[in-house]
Formats: sequence, C-alpha cells, structure tokens
Amino acid sequence: MRDEFSFIKSITPTNRFQQQLTIGIGDDAAVYKTSAATEQVVCVDAMVEGIHFRRDTLSPFQIGRKALAINISDLAAMGANPMYYLVTIAVSESWSEHELQDIYAGMNELAELYKMDLIGGDTVSSKDQLVLSVTAIGNVREGHALKRSSAKPGDVLFVTGPIGKSAAGLELLQQKEKDNSFTDVERSCIRAHQEPEPQISSGTYLASLGKRIALNDVSDGLSSEAMELAEASNVQIVVDQEKLHPILPDLQDVDHSQKLHWLLNGGEDFQLIGTTSEETFAQLQKSGSITLFDIGFVRAGNASVIMKSANVETLLAKGGYNHFS
Amino acid sequence: MRDEFSFIKSITPTNRFQQQLTIGIGDDAAVYKTSAATEQVVCVDAMVEGIHFRRDTLSPFQIGRKALAINISDLAAMGANPMYYLVTIAVSESWSEHELQDIYAGMNELAELYKMDLIGGDTVSSKDQLVLSVTAIGNVREGHALKRSSAKPGDVLFVTGPIGKSAAGLELLQQKEKDNSFTDVERSCIRAHQEPEPQISSGTYLASLGKRIALNDVSDGLSSEAMELAEASNVQIVVDQEKLHPILPDLQDVDHSQKLHWLLNGGEDFQLIGTTSEETFAQLQKSGSITLFDIGFVRAGNASVIMKSANVETLLAKGGYNHFS
Repeated sequence: MRDEFSFIKSITPTNRFQQQLTIGIGDDAAVYKTSAATEQVVCVDAMVEGIHFRRDTLSPFQIGRKALAINISDLAAMGANPMYYLVTIAVSESWSEHELQDIYAGMNELAELYKMDLIGGDTVSSKDQLVLSVTAIGNVREGHALKRSSAKPGDVLFVTGPIGKSAAGLELLQQKEKDNSFTDVERSCIRAHQEPEPQISSGTYLASLGKRIALNDVSDGLSSEAMELAEASNVQIVVDQEKLHPILPDLQDVDHSQKLHWLLNGGEDFQLIGTTSEETFAQLQKSGSITLFDIGFVRAGNASVIMKSANVETLLAKGGYNHFS
Repeated sequence: MRDEFSFIKSITPTNRFQQQLTIGIGDDAAVYKTSAATEQVVCVDAMVEGIHFRRDTLSPFQIGRKALAINISDLAAMGANPMYYLVTIAVSESWSEHELQDIYAGMNELAELYKMDLIGGDTVSSKDQLVLSVTAIGNVREGHALKRSSAKPGDVLFVTGPIGKSAAGLELLQQKEKDNSFTDVERSCIRAHQEPEPQISSGTYLASLGKRIALNDVSDGLSSEAMELAEASNVQIVVDQEKLHPILPDLQDVDHSQKLHWLLNGGEDFQLIGTTSEETFAQLQKSGSITLFDIGFVRAGNASVIMKSANVETLLAKGGYNHFS
C-alpha cells in the first residue's frame, strides 16, 4: 500500500452518528461537544499479530472487529455508552490494501451497531507484525460509572454469560482445519472467539440503576478478572464451582476439567463479571431486564480468589498475577 | 521486562493535575467530567522505531518526550488546552525496563509542563520494532477550535517560529559522531530535533481571540502543511521566498538551497502555520503577545502551494501528496 491519502479516504466513514461531533477526521484533531450531567469515559487497547491474534484463526475483518470489541467491552465494564473511536495501525507490506480495508470494515460493523464515529487515527509502517491500537470514548451519567472497587463482603458474584467459549473456539480452530465440519456448539465457540459481542446493553443497564455494583469485563480468564475486583475492593471472592455449569462451554466430548481451565484461564469472552448486594441482585433477577448468572459470593479477607467445591476451597489467584502480552 | 504489573505501577504518575478526573489509571477506562461551554479535542499519533526515530539519534527519554510532543502539537494546532493522554507501547525484549521507564519519564516531563494526566494505556509485546502510539485529549472554548479550512484569499500566511531546524539537527546527528563538538547553533538544531517544543501558548492564545484563523502544525515540511491548509480551504497559498530568511536554520556553513530544502521538506518542527486577515495579523503583531512571522499570502485559485521569488513562481505542491510512514 503506497497511497496513504486515498487509503485514509477509503476507510473514512461518510456518515456521522453523533450529533455532538463538531470536527471529525481531517484536521489536526477531532472536536466534540459534551452533554451536561455526563462524564467522559476513555480507554485504549491494542492487538499485536502473533501475540493476540494469528492470521490463520482470524480474518482481517475479524481482527478489526475484535480490536474495537475489546475497547467497547471496557466501556461496557464502566457502564458507558460508546460514542467515538480512534485507530493507530502499524502495518507491514505483507498486508494488502484490500486486507487493511477489511480490518476497518470489521471495526465499522461494530461501530454502526453502537453508533460510534471514527474520529481520528494514524497509519504507520512497520517491518514485521501488525499492531492495531484502538482508543474508545464513551459517556456515562455523572457519578454512575461502575468501578471495580465497589465490591463488599456479602455481595453476590455474577457474570452476564458463558466464559471460556472463546478459548474453546481458539482450540478448535487450531486443532482442526478451518473447513472441517463443526457441530453447532463448536461453531458457537468459534464465533465467540472470532466475533465476540461486547455487553454494552448489560453494562449501561447496570449503570442506569444507580446502585452499588462492582463491574469488570472478562478479557482475560475469570480467575484474573475476579482477582482485579478482589484487589480493587480489598475483598475475598469465592467462586462456587457447583454454580459454574450453566456458563461453561457446552462441548460434549470435552472433559469438565478442560472446560474449567478455559473458563478460569482462557480469555476474550468479553462477558461482564461483577458483584452487588443480595438485595440488588434479587431485584435484577426479578426484573428480567438482563441475564445474570450467580456464580459465587464476596467475603472479608485478604484480596484473593477462591474456588469452592463442596467443602474444599482452593486458592485460584493471589496478588501480583502477570500477563505481559 | 517480565513483570507488567510492577512496570505499570512504576510508570503511573502519583499526582493528578486535572481536578475533573474522576477515575484515573487502574479500572477498565478512565472517567472525567467536562466543563460547560467547552468542547473536547482528541488526536492520536504514533512513532515507530526505524521509521520515525532511531535509537542512535534519540535517547529513550527523547523518544517518549517526542511521542507526546507530536500529539500536544496537534492540540496546539486546534487551539486546545492539553489535559489527558493515553499510551500504547508495543515493545520487544531488546528494550530494557530501565529504557522503557525513561520513555515514560520523557512523556512525563512534558505532561508536567502542560498539566496533563496519564489516564490509560496498554503495554504489549512485539517481536521487533518499538511502536509508541499516544492519544491526547484537550479542550477548547465552544466554537473556538482553529480549523485548517478557514483560510481566505487576501489572508497573511504566518508561522510561529523557525522551520527546518529539526531536519538540520537530524542531519548533523547522522553526519557527526554524537560526542563531536557542535557549535551553539548546531546544538540548537539538534535540540529542535530531539526535544521539540509544541506551541501550546501560541495556539491557545490564537484560539482565545475568537477571530477567523486557519491553523495547522508543521509536523511534516512547510510545503505539505501549507498544502493541507490550501486543500482544506480550497485556496492558493503563496510562500514568499524573500520573507523566509528569519525562519531558516541559521547554520553558516550550509547552502541556502539546503536550508530551503529542510524548511520545505523536512519535518517535526512543531511550529504552527496559519493564515488570517491582514487586519487581524496587524493587531496580533501590534499586541506583541506572541511571535508571528509573515511568510506569504493567500489568493484565490485551485488548491495549491506556490513559491514566489522576485517575479518567478514555482509550484511546490498540488493535490495528493503522499507520506506513508
């Protein structure tokens, strides 16, 4: 790809969703108005070829879609409405212009769904791996952002949906040829890996209640995400193994222990994990507005995550876990 | 560098400048309030090792400082006040943890100067080159952002300071050994390359006036930056060669044509280039609040940039120039 100018034109959306956007792509910076009584919510997350994705398991369209999904998921975990995004792409000549356009088309699919405007970016050369860094901006009603630090002893631990499906899907893709025939459940896992759905409606609904709710998104495994809640809130989080069945990948030929491993240590499911009082949780279940799975509870103790099975308790994670990737 | 957790702690600033920041680094996203009657200004720019910088001409501190400076310069070109920034760094094992901390220290130096808070980021592995992508956020009084599209025939073309010094400095660094003795002027050029100063005070002052002013920053050469103004405003911009003397690099042993080349085709000076009516320009000169150099004028015509010398006019740039780097 030699012509940056025409490439940028080709990937710049022609329609605008956000009325408050004063200046979009094409000047030194984008400019937008804000609404009274809202706060701005901003995050950035990057995907690197060979580390966060491989070209044989994600199409260019899916790479782009996922890079934006990761960031929308972070907004969901704050209870924010997505509004804008900016993209840095560092790309080598091994990627064709058509493939790059597909990457932007993948982002655009989600952007249209969530009414997000692409308001800026930078396209740079790299010698080797593709690096895709996305900044996402949303807003939330003032004081309503859902922090990780709000968990309290006595809370219910909940998730919004299945965890481990994405890791299962990746494993299936790596084991079998792409064109192999997959069962419907296998396909569902592969789709969870390739085209994850951020949980914006659940996040914004939870934020709208104005209740004390701790919230995080499951971008890494449940174990480390629960640990983030535990550390931020300085509480002990207990995962009840007997309650995990409805959220484990529903693959018949796979061992329970393997499914549990995917759930605890997989990643990229982009469901939400949170805690709230038993009272609020009961109200949420009664309202039926969103699906929540009760998978454990919070108690006082050093920041840590415990797996409880019958009468056996196992320490899952305690302080200083690392993922440098 | 193996321990992402402690690394992030080591580069996370402990103080906060912006009172309106509700949630800083450490949750899924940052949250901040906005002021009534302001608009948000957002941009992103990346630097790639081997393309935008080399380790033998910029220290890690200078790499970080420059990556933020580029973005602050974009805010300056809109007339915005810098407030927040987010950083994605894709880094290979050839960089030590100490060097990475120096990169953040370099950003931090400018951040302290401009009272910017680091509110988010992502640290990812790469196999090869370092990629540093910075998102900067500022604000501007509603309706006061300075666009590239405001130039009109009859305007004065101005810049805020010397152009081409950075390219001259890079050339000096590449020609001579680093420890060679440089003259004061040479040192000043090298400093312009290694530690450029974004022109925030000039940008915010120009925006505060509420006058019609077209503005851009000189991140590439003057030729292409003037062309951006010409295209956005659909006017012809005439650079008067006889007025360029005060803004050319002041190196005695260098040919005039070489200096002119640096000015027109160099880059990374981060001065501002703009146009405004003769009346406003005269008022600006009279007020003495900021330094502006008159280097030409705007006239009706197809979007293009012309160099005028005595009675000879040369076309410098017309449409569709490219820089894919």
